[in-house]
Amino acid sequence: MDPYQESLRLHESRKGKIEVRSKIKISTMHDLSIAYTPGVAEPCRKIFGNRDDVYKYTSKWNLVAVVSDGSSVLGLGNLGAHAAIPVMEGKAILFKLLGGVDAFPVCIDSQDIEALIDTAALVSPVFGGVNLEDIGAPRCFAVEKKLKERLDIPVFHDDQHGLATVLYAGLSNALKVVGKKLRDVRIVISGAGAAGTASARMLHSAGVKNIVVADSKGIIHKDRSDLRDNKIELAESTNPEGITGGLADAMEGADVFVGVSVGGIVTKDMVGKMADDAIVFALANPIPEIMPDEAEAGGARVVATGRSDFPNQINNALGFPGIFRGALDTRARDINRAMKFAAARAISGLVDEPVEGCIVPNVLDRRVALSVAKAVAEASMKSGAARVNVSMDEVAARIPAYV
Amino acid sequence: MDPYQESLRLHESRKGKIEVRSKIKISTMHDLSIAYTPGVAEPCRKIFGNRDDVYKYTSKWNLVAVVSDGSSVLGLGNLGAHAAIPVMEGKAILFKLLGGVDAFPVCIDSQDIEALIDTAALVSPVFGGVNLEDIGAPRCFAVEKKLKERLDIPVFHDDQHGLATVLYAGLSNALKVVGKKLRDVRIVISGAGAAGTASARMLHSAGVKNIVVADSKGIIHKDRSDLRDNKIELAESTNPEGITGGLADAMEGADVFVGVSVGGIVTKDMVGKMADDAIVFALANPIPEIMPDEAEAGGARVVATGRSDFPNQINNALGFPGIFRGALDTRARDINRAMKFAAARAISGLVDEPVEGCIVPNVLDRRVALSVAKAVAEASMKSGAARVNVSMDEVAARIPAYV
Repeated sequence: MDPYQESLRLHESRKGKIEVRSKIKISTMHDLSIAYTPGVAEPCRKIFGNRDDVYKYTSKWNLVAVVSDGSSVLGLGNLGAHAAIPVMEGKAILFKLLGGVDAFPVCIDSQDIEALIDTAALVSPVFGGVNLEDIGAPRCFAVEKKLKERLDIPVFHDDQHGLATVLYAGLSNALKVVGKKLRDVRIVISGAGAAGTASARMLHSAGVKNIVVADSKGIIHKDRSDLRDNKIELAESTNPEGITGGLADAMEGADVFVGVSVGGIVTKDMVGKMADDAIVFALANPIPEIMPDEAEAGGARVVATGRSDFPNQINNALGFPGIFRGALDTRARDINRAMKFAAARAISGLVDEPVEGCIVPNVLDRRVALSVAKAVAEASMKSGAARVNVSMDEVAARIPAYV
Repeated sequence: MDPYQESLRLHESRKGKIEVRSKIKISTMHDLSIAYTPGVAEPCRKIFGNRDDVYKYTSKWNLVAVVSDGSSVLGLGNLGAHAAIPVMEGKAILFKLLGGVDAFPVCIDSQDIEALIDTAALVSPVFGGVNLEDIGAPRCFAVEKKLKERLDIPVFHDDQHGLATVLYAGLSNALKVVGKKLRDVRIVISGAGAAGTASARMLHSAGVKNIVVADSKGIIHKDRSDLRDNKIELAESTNPEGITGGLADAMEGADVFVGVSVGGIVTKDMVGKMADDAIVFALANPIPEIMPDEAEAGGARVVATGRSDFPNQINNALGFPGIFRGALDTRARDINRAMKFAAARAISGLVDEPVEGCIVPNVLDRRVALSVAKAVAEASMKSGAARVNVSMDEVAARIPAYV
C-alpha cells in the first residue's frame, strides 16, 4: 500500500499517536491521599517556597514543549496549527521512543510573532525545554531569539539547529567517502528559510569557505535588492565569488548540493553538471528536490534524503532526542554551539567506515541517542550551559533500550 | 508516616506523576515512514482540507487541557503556576485512571484575565476540552465565560461545576438519611468563591429555597455595601429572610453546612447550634472547616469532607472523569445544566441505601465514571449539546477496567 494511505489508516485506527499516562499506581484510597489530596499539598508548598523544587517534584525535568504555529509544515507549506498536529505528535513519540523524553504538542492557533512568544512563554512552567518546530522563516528567527531571552529553559528551533547538526554530521562522512575536505568544497544550499540559513551558518562556522545559497528567486548575492532579514546576512556571509543566476547556475561545478527547499526542483541534468564525486542531499519532505535514483543517474556519488524509506536518512530524529536528553539532564540554560557540534561529532562517529550507501547511522539505532546525549551532556557541563552535573550512567539509564 | 512527608517522598522518587507515551509501536524503518515522514504528510493534508478531520487523525478527541494560573491552589491560596503543577498532574492522572481521558497540565504563568483567555484559546487546537482548575474568584467567572464564547470545545471550570455537581449528589443522599426534603431545608454555604457561588446556583436551580452564603466578612445580604461581581448576584438570589451577622449566626438552626472556604473555621459549638440531624460537608482542602470527629461531637449526623482519608469523600474526582468522557464522546459543544444534573443523579444513584457513613460511592469505584459518562453522553445527545452520537457500549469501552 502507498505510504500515504497506510498512514491515514494508521492514524484513524489509533485515533492519534500520543497518550498521557500516570507514572504512579493508584489502587487504594491511601494511594489517592498521597498522590492527590491531601498529600499533594506538600509538594505544592515546597515549590511555592523554592521555585527550583519544581524540578524535584514534578515532571518538568523531562518535559519538552513541541511548539508550532503550523506555518511551515514539513515541505507542505502553511497548513496552520490544526493540520500540523500529526507531525507534532510524531515528533513527541520519537522524543519518547528514542530519547526517553516526554514531549507534548503545543500547536498555537496564531501566526503573530508576539502571540507565539507570549503563548509559548506563558505555558512554559511545566516544561524543561522548548522545541520550536515548523515555524516559517523569517518569523522563526525572531521567535527563537526573543523566547531565549525570556525563558530560563533551553529553546531550540529544530528545523534550524537540529537539521544543521545532522546535516553537518552526514556531510562530514560523505566527504570522507569522496575524499574531499570541508575547507575545499563548494556547497550549494537550495532554500534560505530556517534550515538553509542555519545550515549555512553552521557549515561556515565549521570551516567551509565557499557556500552559495539560492532561494526561489535564484542565487543570493550582495547586489540583490529584494533581500530582507536573514537573507541580508546570508548575502554578506556566503557567496564569496559573488556569482549570480539561478539554482542551475549555482550547481555547475559544485561539490555538494543541499536541498532544504521544495520537492522536484532539481533535474538529472543539473546534477550532471556538478563536480565529479558529487554529493546530493535532497532533504525536502515528503518529496525530495530530486529522487535518489534520478540523482544517481545524473552522476551523484553520495545521495541522501530526509525520508525513512531510502538509505542515508538525514533526519532530525538523529539529533533532537539525544540533544534534549543531554540538555535536560544537565538542566542546560541553552543548547549552545559547543553542544551542537558535540552532537554532530557523536552522530558521524557512529559510522566506522562511511561508504556511499551508509554515511549516517540508522535513526532507530539505540546507540545514536545514547551517544548524542552523552556528548551533549558533556559539552553542556564543559561549556558552562549546565546548571547541574550528571554522570554518563545517569544519562544512559534514561534512554529506552527497546529498539 | 504523615501523608505530607509520604507525598513528598513519592513525588521525588517518581520525579512527577505524568508521562507522554506513544500509542503506536515503531520498530522498523517502515513503521517510521508511516507514523512520521513521509506518510504523516497525508493526515496533515486531510486536516488542512477539512478541519473536522482533526478528530479523526489526531489525539484531540480524547485530550483535555487542565488549565490553571495557580491563583487558588486547593485551599492553599495563590501559589502561582509552578507550585500548582503537582495538583494539575494529579488531576491529569485521575482523568486517565478513572475516565480513560488523556489530560495535560497547562499551567499559565500570568494572572491577567485576558492573558489567561488568550493562552488557553491559542493552545486549544490539540485539545477536545478545557478543564479550568484552581483559578480564583471572581476572575474565574470571566475567564470561563469568555473562553466558552471563543472556543467550540467544552470549557468547564471544575471548581465551580464539578464541585457543585458532586455536592448536589452527596446532599441528595444525605437528606435521604436524615429524612428531610431539599425544598424544606436551610443550607449555609461558607465561601463565596468559585465553588460556593456555583453550588448556590445549582442548589437553587434544584429547588432549594433557603440558601445563606457567608464569605470571610460574614453573611451575604442585600444591604452589604462591599459586594462585587458574583457576590452581588448571590445577595439577590440567596438569603430570602435577609439575615445578617457572621458564619456562626448563619449556622444557628441551619439543616446543612457546606464549607468550601478555609480550614478550621467551624467549631464544635457552632455545629451544636444547628438543627437536629445536621449535615456537615466540610470540603476545604487539605484542612476541612472542621475535622469529622469534632463535627460529630458537635452533634452532626452526616459528615463529609473532600479528603481521601475520611469516609464520605465529596471529591470532584467523582465527577470530572465521567463528565468529560461523556462530553468528549459526543463531541459536546458545552457541558450544560442537563449534563451536570444527569451526572449528579448518576453519582447519587450508585448508593442503593444511603446511611450516615456512606452517602457517595467510593472515588475509585469503576462504576462511578462509567455511570456518569453514560448519563452525561445521553444528556448531551438529548439536550442538543452533542455533535456526534455515540452508543453506550462505545462509552463504556473507553473507561479503564483496572480498579
